[in-house]
Amino acid sequence: MNEHILVEIISQLTTLSEEEKSDIENSFPIKTFNKGTYLLKEGQIARDAYLVIEGCVREYKLIDGEEKTTEFYTENQSVINSSSMKDQSPSEINFVCTEETSLTVLNANLEKKLYEKHPRFESFCRDGVEQMMGQKHKKLTEFITLKPEQRYLKLQDERPDLINRVPQYYIASYLGIKPETLSRIRKKLMS
Amino acid sequence: MNEHILVEIISQLTTLSEEEKSDIENSFPIKTFNKGTYLLKEGQIARDAYLVIEGCVREYKLIDGEEKTTEFYTENQSVINSSSMKDQSPSEINFVCTEETSLTVLNANLEKKLYEKHPRFESFCRDGVEQMMGQKHKKLTEFITLKPEQRYLKLQDERPDLINRVPQYYIASYLGIKPETLSRIRKKLMS
Repeated sequence: MNEHILVEIISQLTTLSEEEKSDIENSFPIKTFNKGTYLLKEGQIARDAYLVIEGCVREYKLIDGEEKTTEFYTENQSVINSSSMKDQSPSEINFVCTEETSLTVLNANLEKKLYEKHPRFESFCRDGVEQMMGQKHKKLTEFITLKPEQRYLKLQDERPDLINRVPQYYIASYLGIKPETLSRIRKKLMS
Repeated sequence: MNEHILVEIISQLTTLSEEEKSDIENSFPIKTFNKGTYLLKEGQIARDAYLVIEGCVREYKLIDGEEKTTEFYTENQSVINSSSMKDQSPSEINFVCTEETSLTVLNANLEKKLYEKHPRFESFCRDGVEQMMGQKHKKLTEFITLKPEQRYLKLQDERPDLINRVPQYYIASYLGIKPETLSRIRKKLMS
């Protein structure tokens, strides 16, 4: 049997005791969801975060009836709506699986219990959140500073798998442009 | 004498011991910087984070010789380049004071030492970082989904002070538009 992904990640940094391992495994089950399953819907209060083992989750926001794609989460990425979880406020975004997706389900309450029992688990999580914060910060900076064509090139460079994994109109939306503009950019780059 | 801002924030959540208070005060000094002072320059490795007590810090990235403003940090906001700090990689962004600014200086190494001595301090920091992550996430979502005019209205609504506090070309850059476009939007909204 494969090791639990969280155990695997933390074991790269330190040696976990058997009790720590089994507590992590028992607190954070691995689940597989069908394509099209919603992990979080607009209006719901987020109680779980997720770590993608295999698959893809699309994040989108509904603006004037149109789905604006704001993120794609694939292998080893965390899917979380921190604002909703922390403030217990209704989510403004949706998380939906674009393919069959296996994830570790990280329930906020169980996470807190684990912090109390194994304080150093909190250190790993603080570290992980700091890393995620850095990534979101970087993406925001890129989005503000780059032009659509540069954003596309960056995506192609950093996440080449994504281009062929999800429909192009999702990619266009994620880049903040119309599908026609994306087609034009792609044609220009290929010529 | 006023209480240290971090002591003040944490004291709203719990009762700190005298030792915890003095350790926080001694680890994280309050400093005042002149307008134009750089807290972090492109190419440097970030070692400190900051919490603004009074003043304003502008974040920008140099793109083809042009300063693209990517954030403004004012009272009670944290100024941090997590990626540079965590990976010990050269910063891609700059932090500069747009006015005389007083901040609490949070040195990463001293922070780690405090975590070891007072583990619950780590909980406050984890909580704080989760909140910041939520905010960055929200901003990224907004930036992708909103049109420039909507972005301006949101800024006016959420941070009305900022509009009169910094030059308009910084605001335009922050909204990802040209100063002329911002002027046009403002005229349209006033008519």
